[in-house]
Amino acid sequence: MSYHKPEAKTVQDLKDVAHKLRIHSINSTQASKSGHPTSCSSLAEIMSVLFFQQMRLNLKHPRDPSSDRLILSKGHAAPILYAAWAEAGLFPVSELNNLRKIDSDLEGHPTPRLNFIDVGTGSLGQGVAVGAGMAYVGKNLDNASYRTYVIVGDGESAEGSVWESLHFAAHYKLDNLCVIFDVNRLGQSEPTSLQHQMDVYRDRLEAFGFNALVVDGHDIDELCKALHCAESTKNKPTAIIAKTYKGKDFPEIEDLDNWHGKPLGDKAAGVIKHLQGLIVNQNVKMSPKKTCKTGQAPEVDINNIKLCTPPSYKLGDSIATRLAYGTALAKIGADNDRVIALDGDTKNSTYSDKLRNAYPERYIECFIAEQNLVGVAIGAACRRRTVAFVSTFATFFTRAYDQIRMGAISQTNVNFVGSHCGCSIGEDGPSQMGLEDIALFRTIPGSTVFYPSDAVSTERAVELAANTKGVCFIRTSRPNTAVIYNNDEIFTIGRGKVVRQKPSDEVLLIGGGITLYECLAAAEQLEKECITARVIDPFTVKPLDVDLILEHGKLCGGRIVVVEDHYQQGGLGEAVLSALAAHRNFVVKHLFVPTVPRSGPPAVLIDMFGISARNIVEAANSIMKK
Amino acid sequence: MSYHKPEAKTVQDLKDVAHKLRIHSINSTQASKSGHPTSCSSLAEIMSVLFFQQMRLNLKHPRDPSSDRLILSKGHAAPILYAAWAEAGLFPVSELNNLRKIDSDLEGHPTPRLNFIDVGTGSLGQGVAVGAGMAYVGKNLDNASYRTYVIVGDGESAEGSVWESLHFAAHYKLDNLCVIFDVNRLGQSEPTSLQHQMDVYRDRLEAFGFNALVVDGHDIDELCKALHCAESTKNKPTAIIAKTYKGKDFPEIEDLDNWHGKPLGDKAAGVIKHLQGLIVNQNVKMSPKKTCKTGQAPEVDINNIKLCTPPSYKLGDSIATRLAYGTALAKIGADNDRVIALDGDTKNSTYSDKLRNAYPERYIECFIAEQNLVGVAIGAACRRRTVAFVSTFATFFTRAYDQIRMGAISQTNVNFVGSHCGCSIGEDGPSQMGLEDIALFRTIPGSTVFYPSDAVSTERAVELAANTKGVCFIRTSRPNTAVIYNNDEIFTIGRGKVVRQKPSDEVLLIGGGITLYECLAAAEQLEKECITARVIDPFTVKPLDVDLILEHGKLCGGRIVVVEDHYQQGGLGEAVLSALAAHRNFVVKHLFVPTVPRSGPPAVLIDMFGISARNIVEAANSIMKK
Repeated sequence: MSYHKPEAKTVQDLKDVAHKLRIHSINSTQASKSGHPTSCSSLAEIMSVLFFQQMRLNLKHPRDPSSDRLILSKGHAAPILYAAWAEAGLFPVSELNNLRKIDSDLEGHPTPRLNFIDVGTGSLGQGVAVGAGMAYVGKNLDNASYRTYVIVGDGESAEGSVWESLHFAAHYKLDNLCVIFDVNRLGQSEPTSLQHQMDVYRDRLEAFGFNALVVDGHDIDELCKALHCAESTKNKPTAIIAKTYKGKDFPEIEDLDNWHGKPLGDKAAGVIKHLQGLIVNQNVKMSPKKTCKTGQAPEVDINNIKLCTPPSYKLGDSIATRLAYGTALAKIGADNDRVIALDGDTKNSTYSDKLRNAYPERYIECFIAEQNLVGVAIGAACRRRTVAFVSTFATFFTRAYDQIRMGAISQTNVNFVGSHCGCSIGEDGPSQMGLEDIALFRTIPGSTVFYPSDAVSTERAVELAANTKGVCFIRTSRPNTAVIYNNDEIFTIGRGKVVRQKPSDEVLLIGGGITLYECLAAAEQLEKECITARVIDPFTVKPLDVDLILEHGKLCGGRIVVVEDHYQQGGLGEAVLSALAAHRNFVVKHLFVPTVPRSGPPAVLIDMFGISARNIVEAANSIMKK
Repeated sequence: MSYHKPEAKTVQDLKDVAHKLRIHSINSTQASKSGHPTSCSSLAEIMSVLFFQQMRLNLKHPRDPSSDRLILSKGHAAPILYAAWAEAGLFPVSELNNLRKIDSDLEGHPTPRLNFIDVGTGSLGQGVAVGAGMAYVGKNLDNASYRTYVIVGDGESAEGSVWESLHFAAHYKLDNLCVIFDVNRLGQSEPTSLQHQMDVYRDRLEAFGFNALVVDGHDIDELCKALHCAESTKNKPTAIIAKTYKGKDFPEIEDLDNWHGKPLGDKAAGVIKHLQGLIVNQNVKMSPKKTCKTGQAPEVDINNIKLCTPPSYKLGDSIATRLAYGTALAKIGADNDRVIALDGDTKNSTYSDKLRNAYPERYIECFIAEQNLVGVAIGAACRRRTVAFVSTFATFFTRAYDQIRMGAISQTNVNFVGSHCGCSIGEDGPSQMGLEDIALFRTIPGSTVFYPSDAVSTERAVELAANTKGVCFIRTSRPNTAVIYNNDEIFTIGRGKVVRQKPSDEVLLIGGGITLYECLAAAEQLEKECITARVIDPFTVKPLDVDLILEHGKLCGGRIVVVEDHYQQGGLGEAVLSALAAHRNFVVKHLFVPTVPRSGPPAVLIDMFGISARNIVEAANSIMKK
């Protein structure tokens, strides 16, 4: 593919469009009285060339799976992204002045409430991971010709997540990915640490395996050439490192401090006049290239995914829920070839390797880099191309909390599976114990939090998660637990199970995972002490089966003991308390891990940290007087 | 400082010690029936040279502020670290066999329960940040000669946090820091992505500004020389990139897959016999160098830190709590020269720049890299060298949740200050809104969570945090709020304030930050509707003033409305519910942000998302019937 320089007329038109985009960015931020016009201006030529020379887009269907993707990782430059789509004809330019208004989806940072946005950005340093996920799918699953572009700010390139993703992209030779660094030298509160040391950026990107091109980011010719080089370069991704100026072509503002995140105020009119003077053809109108007819992405159907065979266990079999997860993952993988798994070098602990063993092409090893792991999954699931399951130790999702949080804003459907929850993992000690994972995933808007206790319910949780919108989290345990459900038991999100009851029950015990079994053992013991206890398995912590808990809680005299292998805050216990908040006459004893645990045998730890059958018996006894 | 090769006898002794460390690592993991002997073996020579040739240590006082620091970032290799300290004479070698036992502090991964450990490790990729924080303090605040060493696994070097910290260390020319990469080629579940591509590691580290030395990690001479070179190299940190083999000198195990995290079992005896055969002097006994007499760290006193002047506001003044934070920070900085501030390029929003303006040498700009920001602070606060305040937007602490979690295991006293909480920030939109930050910090064991509502209480929160052990979090708000406390009001952790009351009150309203003011406005409105409402400002969400809430909740008929600019889960509302769990006869209406907010004016958002005075009035009315 040899390079043909664009004609002089085209170059001039692209320059003119760039200035128009600048003017739109100023106007819209003037209208909203907030926003980042200077951060827009540095990438005006980049946007112009991407939209009107390089990318293949479908204006009738902005999420056409065969179109090129663009992620504006530096989401605060949203106004110029909106301006580019408006100039391209997707919606009227006049709408830009609704920026940041309460009834407009043109928000301060991009979200998929807009039909031309794949993921929310605005928390910095996350775009490359998402782009890498899209590119991985494009190259390896879709085998399609669409390309993925990511625009990264120089400030955000200090985020380690960016370097995780660059490494990932190079490792997997994602030559359909092009990362454009807008090196405008200035951060929010002071210059970036590298300022305009373009050679340092180049050295780093080359060392990370990229085809690294330093260009003048305001030179149309150089940008066109670099983008062509990116498209022609095989077996490695390209980084275009664009030297730019913040507030470019804004007189008395360009390249100066203290203009981050501020509309131009009373300087706006003068700057706009200056920019208009730079435009040669005031009526310039360009259109994006259309989506390729060749190399189209295949149609995929990710609806109604099923376990290819139902669970097949014997009651009383002893199987870790993490193992049942692996089994179920392979089963839904057999049912639908768009089920993929991603892991961070823990696949032989989480058992995601069961999918890899069956379908190696659908397993993505992300090595020990959880932020990128999550971001790649979010990218891979965009435009409904895949059903992604991400697994690692439950506690290591804390490493990617920000990515998961942004995943909710991105309306992602990624499924997260966290193994090794709680102090019941034993000797490895507290650094490896998930004791805040339920709290983390409960805070995610629209999330579903599964906490299956046996192998049958785990398999069904996996099947349900595959078909559920929004973030799903499945908490799995390290120790073996008994199978307590029949293989044909039906599970539903938001529906718990009463696993032990008698009409005379005086206290309700609620547990999940290993603590469900401690509840059952406690109930046995309590019965010897002439206290009969009912036991509930909530199955999902969010949504919680409020009606079931209210009904049976009342039947047990309003006495409830909740016990969980998790810290006090934000877990199952507080979920139960939230469910009961509007009702008087309940008394709840909450057993939880009260402090940082330590290394030791699981059974000893469970008892030492207050969540064993013995502790539950004590709690039930204490609550009987209330 | 010219290099003198160690004598042949010394080299042989160091080799022998390395093998002894291997044997100890095998024996202790045999005793515990779990652990990572192969991950220990790859760094046996590194440990031997560090402990018995390079580092200056004080065995009588392992946390001597003038001693060299060592952080084992790959914490799963704990057994060989314990073995080295035992060989050095800190405790009997026989104790190593208590590894991972419930009554031993020789846990699966290192924690500061041991007097020779500064920080917990085990969640990977965090050691360089901590080491960089120590080195920064050593070079810039202590002006002392101690050096900091960090041992990083090659697997964990995929974590972006590592690259954030490497960049930081080079940017600040931390030539007293030496990072040793143990490149043993094998991860947990498969080989690392770079395996033994030593040139790639070197290129990356050089590009990141390090003096990068590739060595044979099993060659004593090469290691000694590299460590000497590190000590002699000025103005840049050194990376020693050691090519090693996992399970080195373990026949039929060395460099093979599937030996991660497993004791050697029935192969142990044979391997030990082999290793004993490699030892020339079975009675080898070496001692570490002693802590330098020159270049000692100064004595510091960080007790009883005070605001240099009390708050000076007028009742009714309108001041954002984030601004009051900056004011207070400068005031405690005036009182104690070990108060430092760190920020991630948001200092002009969080107002941490007030410390920088007053004492530039005590402000550490960490740029946009929150994981490193938190890790550096944890390192800087080790051995009680500084009182560190870390600030950024509250929601961006999600980026460092894993570091903060590990901070609790590390027994850190770092103070975190999160600004821009809640949907009340307005037009920037949901990516910038802290709506899960209370949940995050509440889960941290031993944490204190301040949520001051006015400028006076904010200043006191800062003063209290500076003197409080464990992780402290102060949540600050973007909008201005009225000063409601007198300048001499006394604030105590765990003590709330009743800010409005009448004997006839029928409902209790609890809010924090902007919602406290919405509660006060709602109480005004309710009074017009002939419902009198009491209002409580909790001041700290953790610990919560349970007694105050119980007392006043009962006096208000058990009717409580809690309202917070935060998601439902894990915040103030669930904290209140936890406080009431053991008591019947309360009914709580919890108002919270129910879904992902959007861009818009703060007042509109507060009302749209259900936490305005109007919403509170509705809630109070609805609860009156209960």
